[in-house]
Amino acid sequence: MTENEAYADLGATTQEAMDIAETSMDIVRTFVPDETLNDRLRQKAVHATGDAEFQHLIRCQNDPAVAGARAVLDERPIVTDITMAKAGITGRGHDCPVQKAIGNGAGLAAETGMTRTAASVLELDKRDVYEGAIAVVGNAPTGALALADCIENGTRPAVVVATPVGFVKAAESRKRIRDVAAEYGVPAVTNVGTRGGSGLAAALTNELIHVASDVRDGDVDLTAHE
Amino acid sequence: MTENEAYADLGATTQEAMDIAETSMDIVRTFVPDETLNDRLRQKAVHATGDAEFQHLIRCQNDPAVAGARAVLDERPIVTDITMAKAGITGRGHDCPVQKAIGNGAGLAAETGMTRTAASVLELDKRDVYEGAIAVVGNAPTGALALADCIENGTRPAVVVATPVGFVKAAESRKRIRDVAAEYGVPAVTNVGTRGGSGLAAALTNELIHVASDVRDGDVDLTAHE
Repeated sequence: MTENEAYADLGATTQEAMDIAETSMDIVRTFVPDETLNDRLRQKAVHATGDAEFQHLIRCQNDPAVAGARAVLDERPIVTDITMAKAGITGRGHDCPVQKAIGNGAGLAAETGMTRTAASVLELDKRDVYEGAIAVVGNAPTGALALADCIENGTRPAVVVATPVGFVKAAESRKRIRDVAAEYGVPAVTNVGTRGGSGLAAALTNELIHVASDVRDGDVDLTAHE
Repeated sequence: MTENEAYADLGATTQEAMDIAETSMDIVRTFVPDETLNDRLRQKAVHATGDAEFQHLIRCQNDPAVAGARAVLDERPIVTDITMAKAGITGRGHDCPVQKAIGNGAGLAAETGMTRTAASVLELDKRDVYEGAIAVVGNAPTGALALADCIENGTRPAVVVATPVGFVKAAESRKRIRDVAAEYGVPAVTNVGTRGGSGLAAALTNELIHVASDVRDGDVDLTAHE
């Protein structure tokens, strides 16, 4: 595999697109460390947001890069909160089923007045969808809060990617994910502050897929990173 | 219409979700001016990115809020570069057909090695798809550069929303959009710097839809803003 082919996961398939993606990641690596596997998540966050500062906002717990890559290799389901995060996840380099939560639990949302995303997370959790899954919350703070409740109640995702954005409940929801991740040993990648979003969540998930591809190609040995 | 119902375009339909969306926009309005219709684009950018600084990075040319709202009321097509931006555009409050460019022009991309997005923009332009359209480029710098070429060659979108993200060609592609927007009088909303992305592009487009809804409801008079 050439360097350029490695960047197919950035959506690039033609020569010009691969050149842009490769140059862009080269630039990112000049100012983001490249020492641990989790640094790849920091690099990807910077690449996706176009902001060098974002490397300092990423929080990794319980080796999310290793756990996420293993989950991809095991073809575990990727479950996103909303359509937009799902749309951002590459179709290449993995055989994981990808589904979104939103659209489930409509009855619960209507009954309780809770957000549709929170209701959909609780509904999918009832069906054990999050057990061993790659759980992605890019947009909805209440979705992340609901997921944290599920973890507290015994659900164990393989890895959580949680980056809800905004000024109301977003930072708090990611803090709550970090609290349960720490308490129950769940691998998680989150960010601090008010920023984030579905694009970031999809990009971080794509980097887990990219690490898995590198393992498959013999370029990365996960046991060396544990 | 209640205040909360106005925020259905933020994806919120249940009470809790509407409360979050409304509170969030209230917070945004405490630090972003609310004096012109284009300020709503600056507010939305801050809301979507979770970053107060983003208000200063937005560039509006030729009244994009007015032109965009008119285009929405005229049910002009919304054409995005990639799937992710399309996925972020609300289905409520408008009757505009929404399509993505990517997936067209595969032959051209294969022949020339140009990016798939650039080829798809050129292909759709050949079919006059961008004429009078709401042209949205959230991800691909080369898509924005191709769109600028189309404008230079005579195509006149109703409004351009261009926010490609990254360290290679992204800022340059938005500058090029601003240059042709200025030269040919095309309404455009863009940002400066390396940041941006599909989420931002979708959010700005949703704000055009939201302004159009306010016009329809008699809350905004576009002629007063020209």
